[in-house]
Amino acid sequence: MSKLRVVSFGLGPIGVRAAQLAHARRNLELVGAIDVDPAKAGKDLGDLFQPATKTGITIEADIGALDRLRPDVVVHCTSSFMPVVEQQVLDICRRGIDIVSSTEELLVPDLQHPSIAASIDQAAKAGGATVLGTGVNPGFAMDFMAVVASAVTYSVQHVRCVRVVDAGTRRLPLQQKVGAGMTTDEFEAKRATGRFGHIGMRESVALVARALGFEIDRNEQSLEPVLATEERKTPFLTVSKGAVAGIRNIGRGSLGSRVLIELDLSMYVGAPDPRDEVHLRGDPDVDLIFQGGIAGDSATAAILINSIAQVAAASPGLKTVLDVAPPRSTAV
Amino acid sequence: MSKLRVVSFGLGPIGVRAAQLAHARRNLELVGAIDVDPAKAGKDLGDLFQPATKTGITIEADIGALDRLRPDVVVHCTSSFMPVVEQQVLDICRRGIDIVSSTEELLVPDLQHPSIAASIDQAAKAGGATVLGTGVNPGFAMDFMAVVASAVTYSVQHVRCVRVVDAGTRRLPLQQKVGAGMTTDEFEAKRATGRFGHIGMRESVALVARALGFEIDRNEQSLEPVLATEERKTPFLTVSKGAVAGIRNIGRGSLGSRVLIELDLSMYVGAPDPRDEVHLRGDPDVDLIFQGGIAGDSATAAILINSIAQVAAASPGLKTVLDVAPPRSTAV
Repeated sequence: MSKLRVVSFGLGPIGVRAAQLAHARRNLELVGAIDVDPAKAGKDLGDLFQPATKTGITIEADIGALDRLRPDVVVHCTSSFMPVVEQQVLDICRRGIDIVSSTEELLVPDLQHPSIAASIDQAAKAGGATVLGTGVNPGFAMDFMAVVASAVTYSVQHVRCVRVVDAGTRRLPLQQKVGAGMTTDEFEAKRATGRFGHIGMRESVALVARALGFEIDRNEQSLEPVLATEERKTPFLTVSKGAVAGIRNIGRGSLGSRVLIELDLSMYVGAPDPRDEVHLRGDPDVDLIFQGGIAGDSATAAILINSIAQVAAASPGLKTVLDVAPPRSTAV
Repeated sequence: MSKLRVVSFGLGPIGVRAAQLAHARRNLELVGAIDVDPAKAGKDLGDLFQPATKTGITIEADIGALDRLRPDVVVHCTSSFMPVVEQQVLDICRRGIDIVSSTEELLVPDLQHPSIAASIDQAAKAGGATVLGTGVNPGFAMDFMAVVASAVTYSVQHVRCVRVVDAGTRRLPLQQKVGAGMTTDEFEAKRATGRFGHIGMRESVALVARALGFEIDRNEQSLEPVLATEERKTPFLTVSKGAVAGIRNIGRGSLGSRVLIELDLSMYVGAPDPRDEVHLRGDPDVDLIFQGGIAGDSATAAILINSIAQVAAASPGLKTVLDVAPPRSTAV
């Protein structure tokens, strides 16, 4: 069986890690790497790996390189937001190249951006490409797993997911994303931008609601700081006692006064008992725990790579994780 | 959206329960019921429901009824063994009707019966039908869940699943299937038939091995009785102290002396701490527990019904649970 040809597009921390996994995987052939940052162009991709190595793959800044590289699939990790990635995604899928993207808003593309979703779907079908947004959260821990677990129950009445992440064990951008070390005033100012903290909670609520057929009339979230009760040091920063250690982000899907879907995410430095839980009330109930939690960064890189073959096998169009065969890893 | 038309074929305990779920589900229309047992023919299907009700659906004994009923999908629950169901499956899929089957050997159809698998695949493609074998075990708890959980890890080195079922809480056929109440001599005689105990362990090992790309040169299982350490009563029978309470069935996929996949199933009357566990050694490790376990009978009926829409949407041919979109339930 011939190997799928892969190009990595977007070489931030997750993109680089995904590229490193794709490079190592026996059933994939990483043939190129693209990042719009001119400071990265011309380097060997392996210079960004940990540990650094030589891959013979030179980072390019121009998306036009795809015409020469001719990959089957692009692993796309450039932004959380659909308006930011729209043109990139269109440019790739018009070339007939499939896309696995970490863009959080692509999990349920028409939720916040129906017209962008429609144009991507049209371009993908016209070009013969499949586009999928996925990741650990959103994309797995607080949504897809609830859907998969529902397979063994009937008539679900209520869904509750709990995710607890000790941000102190994660990369610096994640710690910054949850506001670790900020004052509460700084936190408030960031929160007001609407692009702070975890991205994708409303998409997770929507995915669960649509997958299980819950009728909801509200899809809301709350975002609150969690304050450090004692000083905490991470490899990257120090959180003083009383400063912001991270976030608590709760998503709720409701019909009238009834909350049908509750997704409860804590990500802060020092969070105890990291774990992922899925609880379905149905016939029968299903109660599922990932002990220790789903490790964020390596798991996110992994699920992107683990989705490539399924996306390559799917019919053209803009898909969701509900539409394609489930992602899976490969033995050593 | 029009409802999928469903016929239930095979009205044993699981088939009846699945029929009852299909009848109740808002996005399905149960249009018929077939069982080859002439004693059931002519009855109202609802006479077999719990609680009994009237459905207006008369049980028929002849598979030819499908020509009149014209379902989109047949839910097929007649036997664990492919040689037994071969003709039924061929007769259904030649009519262009999709099949969701509880036949355990259909989980990995070419493992034990490659020529039957090939003829079903050919007939399905010729007729434009999709055929899928699924269930809780095999089909979910000890195989599919390990595959899905692998999505968030990279380079899996080892897979271990543990399933503990208190057979005392299950239906009589399940208690009989695991030998509850037998003497050890009776157990030995039954075991020698090769069609006793849990069916599908080798299929589960094979599914995990293929899904994750493990190269294995042995797929073996052991089957031992678990003896009652004290007298146990179930709603259906009594297990004397020292008699067989049930089974321990361990499947192993190995390469040389290295066990790569270990599936450890205990099903006996009085088994403590019922649960399902999935443990993947990889980068990172994944450790998953279904607290209380996946309830067998209602869960098996549920996963059949929860797979209908995905099978109806899939391309024609004989598929496995790895090939189609994941099953999912529906909100009340």
